[in-house]
Amino acid sequence: MNCWRFSPDLKKFSLENFQKVNLFESERMFCDLYCFEIDQEQKPHKHDGSDKIYYVIEGEGIFQVGSEERRLGPGYAIWAPSGEDHGVRNPGPERLVTLVFMAPPPPKKSK
Amino acid sequence: MNCWRFSPDLKKFSLENFQKVNLFESERMFCDLYCFEIDQEQKPHKHDGSDKIYYVIEGEGIFQVGSEERRLGPGYAIWAPSGEDHGVRNPGPERLVTLVFMAPPPPKKSK
Repeated sequence: MNCWRFSPDLKKFSLENFQKVNLFESERMFCDLYCFEIDQEQKPHKHDGSDKIYYVIEGEGIFQVGSEERRLGPGYAIWAPSGEDHGVRNPGPERLVTLVFMAPPPPKKSK
Repeated sequence: MNCWRFSPDLKKFSLENFQKVNLFESERMFCDLYCFEIDQEQKPHKHDGSDKIYYVIEGEGIFQVGSEERRLGPGYAIWAPSGEDHGVRNPGPERLVTLVFMAPPPPKKSK
């Protein structure tokens, strides 16, 4: 069975940039774990024709969707629909870990 | 911002059948919360052309994908790809709550 358990071993951090750990991927959808050190961010960007959901597992993130920003912690799911600018940064004081689901995946190399 | 927080208020249970709470939906993907009382199940079924991910939040489920069964608890993400039989039942002793992501959503009325 293709399954993963969220555990310390699954997380990956780098001082260079936030890290993406791919869990599942098909031509229809991917699921990644995003791991942010304090002050790291995924800069606002958008995908035309793809929707994204963030689900916060640990820490807190400042999420932007469109022109709105909210600081959200564990248990929050955030919808970033096709064509809307979205991004996230980790204001601290803890590391931020989120699941990310996107359908369909963006064209390769434009992620 | 279109976002949800997992909280007791979000869950919905019925002695009739397991309950689905829709959080997000587009033509590309949906995200539901599935809430199972003890002994309730989503019977094995399959979707041709859609992939599903379960993410366990509370309780434990016996997940079937293809011919394999595993009892999995909080923090597990399970991949049920297009064309593979999949289902879940709650063996107890607690209620089972999972997030479900599916891309693309199945045709209406065949869910």
